[in-house]
Amino acid sequence: MDRYGLVMAKKSVREVLRLDEVDLSALDPGSRPVGPKSKKEAAEDLAATGTELDELQEALYAENTRSVLLVLQGMDTSGKGGVVRHVVGLVNPQGVHIASFKKPTAAELEHHYLWRIRNALPEKGRIGAFDRSHYEDVLVPKVERLLSAAELRGRYKEINAFERELADTGVTLVKCFLHISPEVQKERLLARLDDPRKNWKYNPADIDVRSKWSKYQEAYTQALRNCSETPWYFVPSDRKWYRNWAVSRLLLETLREMDPKFPEPAYDLEAEKARLVSNDPLR
Amino acid sequence: MDRYGLVMAKKSVREVLRLDEVDLSALDPGSRPVGPKSKKEAAEDLAATGTELDELQEALYAENTRSVLLVLQGMDTSGKGGVVRHVVGLVNPQGVHIASFKKPTAAELEHHYLWRIRNALPEKGRIGAFDRSHYEDVLVPKVERLLSAAELRGRYKEINAFERELADTGVTLVKCFLHISPEVQKERLLARLDDPRKNWKYNPADIDVRSKWSKYQEAYTQALRNCSETPWYFVPSDRKWYRNWAVSRLLLETLREMDPKFPEPAYDLEAEKARLVSNDPLR
Repeated sequence: MDRYGLVMAKKSVREVLRLDEVDLSALDPGSRPVGPKSKKEAAEDLAATGTELDELQEALYAENTRSVLLVLQGMDTSGKGGVVRHVVGLVNPQGVHIASFKKPTAAELEHHYLWRIRNALPEKGRIGAFDRSHYEDVLVPKVERLLSAAELRGRYKEINAFERELADTGVTLVKCFLHISPEVQKERLLARLDDPRKNWKYNPADIDVRSKWSKYQEAYTQALRNCSETPWYFVPSDRKWYRNWAVSRLLLETLREMDPKFPEPAYDLEAEKARLVSNDPLR
Repeated sequence: MDRYGLVMAKKSVREVLRLDEVDLSALDPGSRPVGPKSKKEAAEDLAATGTELDELQEALYAENTRSVLLVLQGMDTSGKGGVVRHVVGLVNPQGVHIASFKKPTAAELEHHYLWRIRNALPEKGRIGAFDRSHYEDVLVPKVERLLSAAELRGRYKEINAFERELADTGVTLVKCFLHISPEVQKERLLARLDDPRKNWKYNPADIDVRSKWSKYQEAYTQALRNCSETPWYFVPSDRKWYRNWAVSRLLLETLREMDPKFPEPAYDLEAEKARLVSNDPLR
């Protein structure tokens, strides 16, 4: 039934990729711990996953009581936008809610850092996707020393509480850390500089962030360790096709487990059929 | 270059489907005034259009100065949701902004009827899609006699002014009237009752609206006639494949005319390449 023998081995993709002990230096961004070994195989799998995701999403939408929220974090060029395009793009756009968090605006800074996050939560029945998230508010402040260690600890606590609250209110989080190597980042940034159609994606500030690579890895390590009551998944992202495949499977397994159901009609089916058949508006 | 000879005939799909004089009784919802004659041909065309739309949308997004707004109006089951799925679904979901307008909530009723519409306008660089729109606010009140003729005239004026304002601020409207016959509506409503996976889409109130078919056609006629400073397009919608094809082409022609451009980099390409090559964050 499952081509990777995961069912046989009783191991899901979520189990394999789940980050229990966060040690980023031990994680290989070019690895493929589970799943397809080739781009072609991954593409076939992604198409099949797309069909099933689309069906599950329609049931989730019809059920209209719960939602899923994909949280995408990773260094520049790790492929957050690519996942939105190639994975979230597999399902009906009407059932999707995408939010992208950039540097907070002046108006956003007038509020608690979770304010803009709460405002962007998916409605019931939707699959939400966050391109960056509240985790930026514990990464940047640590790297840039904008908050003390005690203040950061306070935020980790708040984030755990916030994520518990989401779970309690029917929002299932799928937190993905898209892990890339600095070498692959360099290639991708160069590609943005080389292709006139990609120049707009490049920002000179990207290199400033890049130059703080190890500081960001430390900040990620600390954030992921301290905010893992809701699990994080490791998504090796040096290969784009593997990254997309992995996220699609994490989402698929999550939705399968949620098992959304088309609701029973709240009206009398036969009576409505009779009304409809007898109803001729042009009479 | 164009398989339907439209280029030769110097007629675009927009020219053919544009509603200049609104007489709904003269419009055949089962017609195909232009374009493919078969489902298969339409599917091939839609795929090619999808590729081009996706490229144009990326340029629109990169350019980040203008937006497109698809306004979808039509009776229940005319396929507003289907267009969102099959046409808007052709492009990157990150560049799309979808809004669906249901019966106004108590909070929405505390505001001017255009308030919720303005709140849902697409951001710069996005393709927006409205599943129903501000036109509901001149259709329902006319059919249900909630407003006087003078009040309705006031709203038509307001809507024209609002749409001019959109044009002036870089929002290009593509207003589509999805026209179906009452017979096809009956088939589609029956299908919703017959398929347990579709039951949730059916609402007994749909038949109440259906029973006022001719009143709605009159309300549409009056609204479309009075609010056509920005043109309306007639989308024959008894055939789903034709409907999707037609909307995809209206959108494509609009985006081609807008001709969005990838912006020139605001930084020094060569200097950035040099910075990047010399930058090794792991050194």
